[in-house]
Amino acid sequence: VRRKICVVVTARPSYSRIKSALQAIHAHKDLELQVVVTGSTLLEKYGAVWKTMQDEGIPLTRRIYTVYEGENPVTSAKSTGMAVTELATAFDGLRPDAVVTIADRYETLATSIAAAYMNIPLVHVQGGEVTGSIDEKVRHANTKLADCHFTASELAKERVVKLGENRDHVHNTGCPSIDLARAAVATSGPILRNDEGVGSAVQIDGQFIVVLQHPVTTDYGPQTESQVIETLCAVHELDIPTLWFWPNVDAGSDYTSQGIRRFRERYEPQNIRFVKNLPPESFIRLLGLSKCIVGNSSVAIRECAYLGVPAINIGSRQAGRDRGANVVDVPCQQAAIVGAIEAQIAHGKYPSDPLYGDGTAGQKMADILATAELTIDKRLPF
Amino acid sequence: VRRKICVVVTARPSYSRIKSALQAIHAHKDLELQVVVTGSTLLEKYGAVWKTMQDEGIPLTRRIYTVYEGENPVTSAKSTGMAVTELATAFDGLRPDAVVTIADRYETLATSIAAAYMNIPLVHVQGGEVTGSIDEKVRHANTKLADCHFTASELAKERVVKLGENRDHVHNTGCPSIDLARAAVATSGPILRNDEGVGSAVQIDGQFIVVLQHPVTTDYGPQTESQVIETLCAVHELDIPTLWFWPNVDAGSDYTSQGIRRFRERYEPQNIRFVKNLPPESFIRLLGLSKCIVGNSSVAIRECAYLGVPAINIGSRQAGRDRGANVVDVPCQQAAIVGAIEAQIAHGKYPSDPLYGDGTAGQKMADILATAELTIDKRLPF
Amino acid sequence: VRRKICVVVTARPSYSRIKSALQAIHAHKDLELQVVVTGSTLLEKYGAVWKTMQDEGIPLTRRIYTVYEGENPVTSAKSTGMAVTELATAFDGLRPDAVVTIADRYETLATSIAAAYMNIPLVHVQGGEVTGSIDEKVRHANTKLADCHFTASELAKERVVKLGENRDHVHNTGCPSIDLARAAVATSGPILRNDEGVGSAVQIDGQFIVVLQHPVTTDYGPQTESQVIETLCAVHELDIPTLWFWPNVDAGSDYTSQGIRRFRERYEPQNIRFVKNLPPESFIRLLGLSKCIVGNSSVAIRECAYLGVPAINIGSRQAGRDRGANVVDVPCQQAAIVGAIEAQIAHGKYPSDPLYGDGTAGQKMADILATAELTIDKRLPF
Amino acid sequence: VRRKICVVVTARPSYSRIKSALQAIHAHKDLELQVVVTGSTLLEKYGAVWKTMQDEGIPLTRRIYTVYEGENPVTSAKSTGMAVTELATAFDGLRPDAVVTIADRYETLATSIAAAYMNIPLVHVQGGEVTGSIDEKVRHANTKLADCHFTASELAKERVVKLGENRDHVHNTGCPSIDLARAAVATSGPILRNDEGVGSAVQIDGQFIVVLQHPVTTDYGPQTESQVIETLCAVHELDIPTLWFWPNVDAGSDYTSQGIRRFRERYEPQNIRFVKNLPPESFIRLLGLSKCIVGNSSVAIRECAYLGVPAINIGSRQAGRDRGANVVDVPCQQAAIVGAIEAQIAHGKYPSDPLYGDGTAGQKMADILATAELTIDKRLPF
Repeated sequence: VRRKICVVVTARPSYSRIKSALQAIHAHKDLELQVVVTGSTLLEKYGAVWKTMQDEGIPLTRRIYTVYEGENPVTSAKSTGMAVTELATAFDGLRPDAVVTIADRYETLATSIAAAYMNIPLVHVQGGEVTGSIDEKVRHANTKLADCHFTASELAKERVVKLGENRDHVHNTGCPSIDLARAAVATSGPILRNDEGVGSAVQIDGQFIVVLQHPVTTDYGPQTESQVIETLCAVHELDIPTLWFWPNVDAGSDYTSQGIRRFRERYEPQNIRFVKNLPPESFIRLLGLSKCIVGNSSVAIRECAYLGVPAINIGSRQAGRDRGANVVDVPCQQAAIVGAIEAQIAHGKYPSDPLYGDGTAGQKMADILATAELTIDKRLPF
Repeated sequence: VRRKICVVVTARPSYSRIKSALQAIHAHKDLELQVVVTGSTLLEKYGAVWKTMQDEGIPLTRRIYTVYEGENPVTSAKSTGMAVTELATAFDGLRPDAVVTIADRYETLATSIAAAYMNIPLVHVQGGEVTGSIDEKVRHANTKLADCHFTASELAKERVVKLGENRDHVHNTGCPSIDLARAAVATSGPILRNDEGVGSAVQIDGQFIVVLQHPVTTDYGPQTESQVIETLCAVHELDIPTLWFWPNVDAGSDYTSQGIRRFRERYEPQNIRFVKNLPPESFIRLLGLSKCIVGNSSVAIRECAYLGVPAINIGSRQAGRDRGANVVDVPCQQAAIVGAIEAQIAHGKYPSDPLYGDGTAGQKMADILATAELTIDKRLPF
Repeated sequence: VRRKICVVVTARPSYSRIKSALQAIHAHKDLELQVVVTGSTLLEKYGAVWKTMQDEGIPLTRRIYTVYEGENPVTSAKSTGMAVTELATAFDGLRPDAVVTIADRYETLATSIAAAYMNIPLVHVQGGEVTGSIDEKVRHANTKLADCHFTASELAKERVVKLGENRDHVHNTGCPSIDLARAAVATSGPILRNDEGVGSAVQIDGQFIVVLQHPVTTDYGPQTESQVIETLCAVHELDIPTLWFWPNVDAGSDYTSQGIRRFRERYEPQNIRFVKNLPPESFIRLLGLSKCIVGNSSVAIRECAYLGVPAINIGSRQAGRDRGANVVDVPCQQAAIVGAIEAQIAHGKYPSDPLYGDGTAGQKMADILATAELTIDKRLPF
Repeated sequence: VRRKICVVVTARPSYSRIKSALQAIHAHKDLELQVVVTGSTLLEKYGAVWKTMQDEGIPLTRRIYTVYEGENPVTSAKSTGMAVTELATAFDGLRPDAVVTIADRYETLATSIAAAYMNIPLVHVQGGEVTGSIDEKVRHANTKLADCHFTASELAKERVVKLGENRDHVHNTGCPSIDLARAAVATSGPILRNDEGVGSAVQIDGQFIVVLQHPVTTDYGPQTESQVIETLCAVHELDIPTLWFWPNVDAGSDYTSQGIRRFRERYEPQNIRFVKNLPPESFIRLLGLSKCIVGNSSVAIRECAYLGVPAINIGSRQAGRDRGANVVDVPCQQAAIVGAIEAQIAHGKYPSDPLYGDGTAGQKMADILATAELTIDKRLPF
């Protein structure tokens, strides 16, 4: 009998960071893939990633709405609680041999609790990184609930071991998002349709930049709006063609959205196109073609290390994350952002850096899931 | 303005392990105590601890039913999910300056998630211990979500620091349960009413032993019933007057209860009295008067270290917990249990051991809560 | 394509009242049966009816734990809320063409809300009856949410029409429980194993009576315990062999259980055997063999009308329910109960009364579900 | 001791329909007001009505987030389920003598279930009306769970009685929204600030119209978007200054919002100002000053009957609602809407009609709540 591997996908970025593993598990002769889609993957407002997944041949086994309206710390907690409760029902029906939780968004801890409490071996992808903020707490709590770990880098692996995990159960596979980056480089064909998103058209065969800026969760509230406006002003001032991607559902993202809307109404920026979602491959190909990426997304640090795309990382959201030479850090101020964008465009591409993987993470994960001993009992070694 | 400290109490043993701190916080001029009672504290079947708390002058601020019927891994997870959701609502209304979560039962992680996600400084009591099983995962996940730590021993403190916590925020206060033990030694008056519990009368001014045996969560199911029956047979064979305390609500506790009921119907043991709940002080005074404690409760290892009461620890539930000279470990087999009880009764009392505290934990906690810097951001130091 | 009919079963009595319909739907060439088991059907403590269903060939499509511990009005409400939430998830996945909710227990309204809000045609079984108490409110609220009605009697049908429902969508099918009663009469073979339940053995080939007493929900609390004790004393006094069936999970059932336990410990009644659950057929065959049924269950009024079994109906729980000649009503007092039991035993069997159906309800329901127009919009005709 | 009256407010329109009663209860010497705010009253996106309430002196006792993101039938059901669960917790803490639920939105049934199951007398405001769609089902289910009824008209009162309710417990108080309309007429001072809403400025001392269009819940989905666009086109074509109010959170409202956004981006209508929320009084004063109201809101039929404001009612949403001479019904087609607006503007004001009350509903409700016998048991009289 094939091992049943249940992967819970809760958000757009999680999909990019697990997609090649989903495909490898689905294709593996000794594994049966179960996929639960939940969180913001179900919401139109964040691109309805579940439809993309379905279109890309991923079998969706359960669909569970969990996100409370409000986008504040109270509703983040409540959404997580409901996810625990309903994931328990799903796992009770699906009876997986292992459950996979991805990274460090708040809902990922729901997957971990449901699996751990139900004595199902839990696999955590992307532990051992350092970022601060609530993600940091969630990530390491996931590590302490998990029985098997797939890290994105050697540094991360060593941190997971230091946290008291058994080295035999910690595997540096690299990040599946790098698999997509590698595949994207080899792809051709059109990327962005003209009717994608709202705002001005951007010619992607010319010079353009990409922006992706999330709220900083511990700073949620009106500051979130002024943070995004610094970047909007910078990009508006530079007047370079820009693709601006909508943020994830999160405490504070209503403020980000409001900032974007107000800015658009007041300034009607002609150089910016606002896009809600793209297939992950298209997004990465766009990145590859772009002059630089601006914002506070981890994609700038991870995928762009491999791609060699210059990155301007704004503010504290990625503080502590291991980074390569392609990243320039700036405070959340219009002038600093403008300067850094100009410098990075002037520099141009960096050499590819395997810091977060060599493009074979998905297959490695599937092979380990098919053969590793699955256990649930552990204790601190110190 | 006084700092508002919200303590969430979820089970009978949690109350014993926080009671002196609740009293010290309530009495502290710079603190305002908020208490949320939830989990099995509300259930008649487990002694309705919330009533005891009310009778003992603890102000109860919110009452939240969270426990699903079923007592299996699925319902443990679901109960936890609902606790997260409703605790978030409670914290939103109460606006505490800090939230306190106690030890490592499954529901304690609900308190931690609600507080951490809502950016409320989280204090974890009793981290850094080693026990295996799901408690181990829950405990260390609590540690990774918490901002301030009150450990019960120096060894525990060092483990919390090794887990990456900032030493400045880790305080070895000892365990408040030792405060109760110290106070109980100084108390006089009647302990147990004749109508307490069901079964035969036990004269507590004579020789008697105490039993407290919980299910081992990862072994839930019919094995749980046979485990409790080994102990029942041992105690029945010895024919020493015995006070047997009912277990906590937990995956498997229905089987424990069923085992006890079936045994009673078949053998009608004349030497055993079954008791559902006692005020914690009475329980500890009983322990102090008893010849030994039998089972797998941590009270045998913690309070009994201070009290010097001989303990027979059965099976794997307390594996890894730091213990003093008063503890003898035995497998879950009738003959082994019988032999160990006889040996411990023959040995008699041990000298008091301050391993888990010197009896001033509650006051120390209140003082730290009143003065410590309360932060919510942290990151791994390695 | 076959119509998908999703039936939600929430309790032991609901199963008896839908079983023949489940079988007829399952066998119908134009229908596909989906069964969701939830509520007390999942609990060991109430006989784990879901296992019986599985053993009897009913396909179980989803299993959802919903019952909160506490058995009080607060937890009844909370259990219902969670059932709404999770049934919505289940219906979203199962995409039924119609949903069936059964009778009037509190959780049945959860099924109705989930279906009605999701624009799925809702079929309500057993509306239009009059009983008082919370069941009355739940039943008629179910009627107002439902689009199609299967009543158990002509009187009930007329009441549903008076409540403003379109006569074309109200069908008097009779009650499926009468189908079981009819089938049971034709069955032979052993009924009760010697190891069924706890307490003294009862010879069912001799004279015996059956007791089934539920808490009266609006009187929950300690009165519930004293009510059950009146009946226990009456049966104990009469000293006739008695099979006593455990009550459903409900506000107050903990008190009922406690009353039974305390009574047994004090009096050790030799004539009573306590049974938690039986396959519905065995239960009905037992009823058919019994001298009379005692308590406040509707089975005494419904199935026993068809069977002609004398019934002693205690207290207010069944007030207002249409009844045949076989029922004698008594207050909840030992002396009155004793007298009525003696009189009914002396009277002996009554003639069969088709008041609640002629034994073909299940097949009628399946046929209507296969052919009726399924609509969701309606409005009051007055 | 004063009776504790707990009112649960779940949406902007509910507040207008209960505000004068809240004030009268709050001021009543024999009553203590408890207010629970939940549903869309908490959401910025729908105007954060809870803040308006607080500003207007209404004491807010509990705040409970309940709305799931998604705005589809699945999430409507789930939000309701969570509201039941958490309202039960709130009522358990608040111990009200009566609970008030308002009208017929989906969440109102949550209030009814929590109160009814907890044996708290339930008061339903605004039963007995006829509208079709899911509101119809919810409204009459509320009636069947309620113990006391405050209707908005004599016709509604008679329907509630026909539904089997005891005439002694059904009171035609009129609708509190008419109280606000009466008060608003007597008020002076500025109504709308220039920075209210987005879009072009509208001079309210000149000629202008008001639009308020909700999704029709059973038609949710992309049709919802095309429906709102018919009205947008009509209003755009007429080029009369227009205040357009944002719809409530509901299945389909994301589509409505999307329709509005897309229309604005494409046509940049210069005559329309989009407003998210106003204090109810300002809204009514605006209505009183407007030439007519367009859309499918019940305000056009109720308040505008009293105010004599011409109304163009679009589509099926208000079908069956009793209406006065001021209302013209049109299908959801641009041409028909244009024609009706022109005709109504030409007609001008109608005489005031007391169909939905004379402006004293709030005080009547408070007086009845203070003196009526509060019961919870009822049964059908037929």
